[in-house]
Amino acid sequence: MDPDPELMPHPHIPSFLQEIVDATKDLVCAYKPNLAFFEALGAGGMQTLLEGLRSVPAHIPVIADAKRGDIGNTARFYAKALFQHYKFDAATVNPYGGRDAVQPFLDYADRGVFVWCRSSNPGAADLQDLRLDDGGCVYEAVARRAREWNEHGNVGLVMGATWPEQLERVREICPDLPLLVPGVGSQQGELEAAVQSAMDERGEGFLINVSRGVLYAGSGDGYAAAARKAAQKLRGRINLMREAVLARR
Amino acid sequence: MDPDPELMPHPHIPSFLQEIVDATKDLVCAYKPNLAFFEALGAGGMQTLLEGLRSVPAHIPVIADAKRGDIGNTARFYAKALFQHYKFDAATVNPYGGRDAVQPFLDYADRGVFVWCRSSNPGAADLQDLRLDDGGCVYEAVARRAREWNEHGNVGLVMGATWPEQLERVREICPDLPLLVPGVGSQQGELEAAVQSAMDERGEGFLINVSRGVLYAGSGDGYAAAARKAAQKLRGRINLMREAVLARR
Repeated sequence: MDPDPELMPHPHIPSFLQEIVDATKDLVCAYKPNLAFFEALGAGGMQTLLEGLRSVPAHIPVIADAKRGDIGNTARFYAKALFQHYKFDAATVNPYGGRDAVQPFLDYADRGVFVWCRSSNPGAADLQDLRLDDGGCVYEAVARRAREWNEHGNVGLVMGATWPEQLERVREICPDLPLLVPGVGSQQGELEAAVQSAMDERGEGFLINVSRGVLYAGSGDGYAAAARKAAQKLRGRINLMREAVLARR
Repeated sequence: MDPDPELMPHPHIPSFLQEIVDATKDLVCAYKPNLAFFEALGAGGMQTLLEGLRSVPAHIPVIADAKRGDIGNTARFYAKALFQHYKFDAATVNPYGGRDAVQPFLDYADRGVFVWCRSSNPGAADLQDLRLDDGGCVYEAVARRAREWNEHGNVGLVMGATWPEQLERVREICPDLPLLVPGVGSQQGELEAAVQSAMDERGEGFLINVSRGVLYAGSGDGYAAAARKAAQKLRGRINLMREAVLARR
């Protein structure tokens, strides 16, 4: 859920999101609002998000894409905002501050915490791919830390879809952690490679996130139907790939 | 500005912050609201912050301590929220996403961007101190990147005060970048060491941030006077140390 006023086919954000939810709720495993897009609306932005989420059925988890991270006491307040006040089921966090920056989120044992590990943007290499003296990369060290932080069993990783070999590497390091995989674009084959690399031994443990490809699949009045069609197609391709990989094993 | 309801000597946050500002505005070089504490108040939190900032004189910059960081398009919306909507003069950002995660902030050439480099919490070592194959640490690589990102001359670094040798190292790498130095506690000598390590060649280029030591210097009705006294004392110690170091050079 990235409501960009320049791309939105409907001028009223809560109505737009509610219609997208109504059109896709039998097809998705989660919704992931990106807080930046709501904060950019100003002081009323979070209220707008809450209204937009109103039609999400209770059994579908909502993941706050917030990438929050700060030292101890501050992190405690960020976690309180996301989990206690807004009651999100899960959140993305930034690992740069280390364990005590993530711990206040982990302490909510019934919520999910997706640690940002390797992103799909060009600049990801600047820091995440730096080579360590043990021969691995920073993002691999983050994956290892996240595994250690998983005492309550509520840790996952955010892993961009663009580089399947990195997804595979992280799946090796963390065979059991759920992977949240954004960055799947329109390119044919990208989705299939991401599914193959991200799935765990049982063919599970991954969430493929598609934002613009669903939200802005259509313009004009037909946008909700177009979103549904795009989500159906993606879901079909994900399941097909999953079954093909499982059959080959 | 970290309004913690459990520590606040006044129940109304905007009034509390306004009184703190009124009591300290002739003593400080900037105010730094920490957004976590306002977000934890719920959907009205940012409005509360704006009210609390109302008495900040126009010539004193306000630094949004937000530690935001996300990939390209999302970062653009975070920057829009902080710089365009809320009109903050500067913000802290998280470097984990690399250059294109920071660029949308840098593009506001008349605003300051403090890149989170090395923090003072115990967990900082988990990631920031990882040793790279070039012999340096992750945080040193971040300092080097930040120097490269400084095309508009609006980049600074956030450097915790706890480890003066790391402050010195970063000052070596970035002789010209302003350093925002939080984490100065009540321990005698800590402030002096931080000033000595953080100041540039001309004895400038650093901001010492004290949050709780000023905000919660006193309890009960005298809290504003106590905050003023604490700020006066800190300012005196900072200036004394600065002059001592300059005299020795």
